[in-house]
Amino acid sequence: MRKIDPEKHAARRRLILDAAIACFSRKGFHGTSTAEICAEARMSPGNLFHYFPTKHTIIAAIVEEERQETAEIFRKLGEEKDLLAALLGFMDTVLDLAGDPAYSSLALEIAAEAMRDERIGALAATNDAELQAALAALISGAASRNQVDSAIDAPGAARWIAAIIDGIFSRIAVDPGFSPKDEGAMMRRLLTRFLCS
Amino acid sequence: MRKIDPEKHAARRRLILDAAIACFSRKGFHGTSTAEICAEARMSPGNLFHYFPTKHTIIAAIVEEERQETAEIFRKLGEEKDLLAALLGFMDTVLDLAGDPAYSSLALEIAAEAMRDERIGALAATNDAELQAALAALISGAASRNQVDSAIDAPGAARWIAAIIDGIFSRIAVDPGFSPKDEGAMMRRLLTRFLCS
Repeated sequence: MRKIDPEKHAARRRLILDAAIACFSRKGFHGTSTAEICAEARMSPGNLFHYFPTKHTIIAAIVEEERQETAEIFRKLGEEKDLLAALLGFMDTVLDLAGDPAYSSLALEIAAEAMRDERIGALAATNDAELQAALAALISGAASRNQVDSAIDAPGAARWIAAIIDGIFSRIAVDPGFSPKDEGAMMRRLLTRFLCS
Repeated sequence: MRKIDPEKHAARRRLILDAAIACFSRKGFHGTSTAEICAEARMSPGNLFHYFPTKHTIIAAIVEEERQETAEIFRKLGEEKDLLAALLGFMDTVLDLAGDPAYSSLALEIAAEAMRDERIGALAATNDAELQAALAALISGAASRNQVDSAIDAPGAARWIAAIIDGIFSRIAVDPGFSPKDEGAMMRRLLTRFLCS
């Protein structure tokens, strides 16, 4: 009987996810066949199906990975002294990601798929709820240190920052005049004034 | 030869658009057949095709109608004395529309179709550019009357307000905790502080 080497397993899983992300960014979920993912990963269909039995399970794994990465980012941000600066730094990262064509087209694909497919929708809703909770925790920590308005409704403000993040990615899709790398100053004006008293 | 009665023509066109909007809100563009639009409008396929030869021309007409309605709203807003209040009133209307399930599902359908179909994408981009120009004109008028920060970058601020409008509709799709009718106060806090010095 063949034994599973966990490191090799993780490495091959990673290889498939990276290949799938590259394909999805270029051609969308529905425009990409599993055959194309196999070609990109230089792997046989049988081998790929051993890791991911359907294209849907690959998309679900990408959304779950996004969740873990976001959690890790916020875990680190929570350790900083200036939590308003930490939040603005997170929003700089959002602008950077929105300015990366591969990332932003994948994010828009996931948003569209979340509306079409209930299971992906449920995963995306979990990510969104966790993002809002992490933003609210950061704002409420900043409020207790008087780094923002100490009377602010932290979950309410987090909901609007989540809306603004959605809006940034939506701009990429509809507005060729929106260049994320040039928007740092306006983003800081918007959020600093919103949060501070 | 049959003569065209312009009033009757406009009324039947209106009837078809309303029927199509009702169908699209319920089942999306791709989930709706022209036969269903005919049934909703109580009209024969031959009659419908006389007004709109394809489903695409119906969608295009809806997006064009949206453009005209937005232009008319801003024409009236521009006549008000307090242009910041006018802008906040417009944003109240946006929250009202986002809270209307039929309107918001149609808006999300149009946004999705704009990404899939180049012609609808071009129409949606025109609407977006006109919305931003109208917002910028309102902000710049408010700045010249000292109703907002007189040094504000009006087109830059308009770009972010357009992003926030996108974000409001996106929240409807992903966040069951976002209830537009309860968000007026946070919206006012966000925009007043952003725009005023």
